[in-house]
Amino acid sequence: MRATLQRITAEFLGTAFLLAAVVGSGIMGVSLSGGNVAIALMANAIATGAALTVLIVTFGPISGAHFNPVVTIVDAVQGGIRWKLVPAYVVAQCAGALVGVWSAHLMFGQAVWQTSVHIRSGPGQWFSEFVATLGLLVAIWGCSRSRPDAVPWAVGLYITAAYWFTASTSFANPAVTLARCFTSTFAGIRPADAPGFVAAQFAGALAAATLFRWLKWPAARSAF
Amino acid sequence: MRATLQRITAEFLGTAFLLAAVVGSGIMGVSLSGGNVAIALMANAIATGAALTVLIVTFGPISGAHFNPVVTIVDAVQGGIRWKLVPAYVVAQCAGALVGVWSAHLMFGQAVWQTSVHIRSGPGQWFSEFVATLGLLVAIWGCSRSRPDAVPWAVGLYITAAYWFTASTSFANPAVTLARCFTSTFAGIRPADAPGFVAAQFAGALAAATLFRWLKWPAARSAF
Amino acid sequence: MRATLQRITAEFLGTAFLLAAVVGSGIMGVSLSGGNVAIALMANAIATGAALTVLIVTFGPISGAHFNPVVTIVDAVQGGIRWKLVPAYVVAQCAGALVGVWSAHLMFGQAVWQTSVHIRSGPGQWFSEFVATLGLLVAIWGCSRSRPDAVPWAVGLYITAAYWFTASTSFANPAVTLARCFTSTFAGIRPADAPGFVAAQFAGALAAATLFRWLKWPAARSAF
Amino acid sequence: MRATLQRITAEFLGTAFLLAAVVGSGIMGVSLSGGNVAIALMANAIATGAALTVLIVTFGPISGAHFNPVVTIVDAVQGGIRWKLVPAYVVAQCAGALVGVWSAHLMFGQAVWQTSVHIRSGPGQWFSEFVATLGLLVAIWGCSRSRPDAVPWAVGLYITAAYWFTASTSFANPAVTLARCFTSTFAGIRPADAPGFVAAQFAGALAAATLFRWLKWPAARSAF
Repeated sequence: MRATLQRITAEFLGTAFLLAAVVGSGIMGVSLSGGNVAIALMANAIATGAALTVLIVTFGPISGAHFNPVVTIVDAVQGGIRWKLVPAYVVAQCAGALVGVWSAHLMFGQAVWQTSVHIRSGPGQWFSEFVATLGLLVAIWGCSRSRPDAVPWAVGLYITAAYWFTASTSFANPAVTLARCFTSTFAGIRPADAPGFVAAQFAGALAAATLFRWLKWPAARSAF
Repeated sequence: MRATLQRITAEFLGTAFLLAAVVGSGIMGVSLSGGNVAIALMANAIATGAALTVLIVTFGPISGAHFNPVVTIVDAVQGGIRWKLVPAYVVAQCAGALVGVWSAHLMFGQAVWQTSVHIRSGPGQWFSEFVATLGLLVAIWGCSRSRPDAVPWAVGLYITAAYWFTASTSFANPAVTLARCFTSTFAGIRPADAPGFVAAQFAGALAAATLFRWLKWPAARSAF
Repeated sequence: MRATLQRITAEFLGTAFLLAAVVGSGIMGVSLSGGNVAIALMANAIATGAALTVLIVTFGPISGAHFNPVVTIVDAVQGGIRWKLVPAYVVAQCAGALVGVWSAHLMFGQAVWQTSVHIRSGPGQWFSEFVATLGLLVAIWGCSRSRPDAVPWAVGLYITAAYWFTASTSFANPAVTLARCFTSTFAGIRPADAPGFVAAQFAGALAAATLFRWLKWPAARSAF
Repeated sequence: MRATLQRITAEFLGTAFLLAAVVGSGIMGVSLSGGNVAIALMANAIATGAALTVLIVTFGPISGAHFNPVVTIVDAVQGGIRWKLVPAYVVAQCAGALVGVWSAHLMFGQAVWQTSVHIRSGPGQWFSEFVATLGLLVAIWGCSRSRPDAVPWAVGLYITAAYWFTASTSFANPAVTLARCFTSTFAGIRPADAPGFVAAQFAGALAAATLFRWLKWPAARSAF
């Protein structure tokens, strides 16, 4: 029981820091880059990827460092985490994500309560989220089996890259999507557009799970 | 047989994600950087290098993560992969590369079918591809023998650097060259210029193979 | 006794190089970026994070590479470093930090003695320092127990990210705060604002220590 | 004898690629960054650091990957490399450096033979080279003793940082200094200014050797 509380706290804290990094670096990037959005996105991508690596390496030994409901749910489907822990994980992730967004607002002296009007919709955006989530989960599960030590570094690099190579800047996470509805800054998403993102993320996760089952990564560290 | 299908699928998927990263980050970089091409190329270089590291660490245990016909062919010459697998690898790499380019177009809401008019020709470009491929293959083979765990990180860093230090931005890969004929975005190459690039890449691979045979990397991990 | 002198020298040198990196890269960034502050901060963040990783990996085996009074003090509270070493560590860190700032001024041909007029105050700044120090110490202690080899890389990435996601650019270190009072360049802080920063840093450290005690990181390397 | 030839070839090739990276990425950075020198220097710093890591990890097992006469000479002083190898190493490094510069010129379609008029002189520049070389050698030797596997990554990160935090952009290498006299591009140095740089580098190396002897890094991997 105690251990469970600690795992859930780790998920809460990790997701809170992740969102503080996403939203905070977006605010800082936009405010300093003089209108050059590419420079703002570079700051956002590097800060998010770096923070994510640190959070996974730090909280991984306690909770597995999911910070992401699709990771938790598909992990349960595959016999990893026990099903009865799933609701607590998901609630902790969503609550942490919201606290992270609000912390970023406080740090930058903004109103805590905000809602986004940033339109992110259409087939290109949905396909982007499908691709982003598919790639993220294949990388996580493939590395977890074959080279578990590399997971934190691979996930951070993946997100830094996916900010740039997907049209949606790669949310790839329903808790992140929910929380980013509540910021009207650079990283925001209009609440009405969130369901499309989440649906695309679950579709990507399903594709990843199918692929993962079929490709059968070798469990031991193989030379290559 | 089953195992072979999985290796070929891994080559297909990895090369598809690689090209989605190359082309997608090029599109995003150009669209946001307000005409400053250096910022677009920085996004392109960081996203490609980061994605490549993740793809090698993820798919390496299954297929070796070649994603590149010259790597596959010279590996066969040196007694690595069996010759009868080579055609399937090369076809999977080329098909995956095309699917990756088209996926990037779909994510960014562009026409799927495009051909490039980006001129990349002349002795400086060819010498660049020679140097880029020579360096890439020496790094891959040297690390593979002496420090195999470092290969994914070394290759990603190499490509990030080579985007900048070669005049051609370092294609160094015939499947990549072929696929980039079919995008009229930042990363494209005019089809008429592809044969020159591919010829230079094979010349670089030949030089690398000669050098590698003569330098004889120590097989065990040596202290230095 | 000899060993103690060496540890203190390592703290002095490491903190000196850290501040030279912070202040020097700030000067260079501002002087070259043509008024785009985001580009200057990117240079500052990447140079500081990279230098910090190198300094920890280099001096860690000698002194533990604290470079930071709150790390040293809370380490003593938790039974790590002996209390009688603490004053010497803190003095060495503060003296090293000042020498580092003055070295940066010398390298860039500026007056050695400067004081800052850069205002950094208000609740957002203080909350930022609280969050920055909390995250830094949780990352250091969590990694130190579960994956000690990852500490240098995690700390460097954390600081690179925290430059961007906190409104204060993440000082998170009283010796750094003190020394940055004595530069009127990009990285400076008005002496009158230093106490607020230091208080927030100790509050963050206290929160981190409480959290760390309760979360109980597993001591061995766990698979995840 | 054969082994010696291979070591010397590795020094030649590694230094050639290093200079191609330094000079080539400088040319590319300047040509694309539209007059924003900070963006050009960022490209230069990231490309050089990334290339250096790859070159050390690749050629380290063969020659030790010095690529730098002060590293070779002080290594001989400390009983590492045999003295009779030193002249060949230094000649290979200087020759490789020149070939690297000329290769960059060829790749970018420039005249092969150039000399620099870029003024780099004065106490701030000399002190910068002193600091840059001191830090580089302490990092190399400290890591080599305590965590040899980390050397390639630490050196690459150090150089990326030192490009920004020293006023001279951190040459820290007499072979590099010599070769950069022969390019009139971004990375060049006026031949008349080279002796001042080289003298400062040897002074930094002397300081590093004294420090290293006194600090006595632990030879085994220590927990911290």
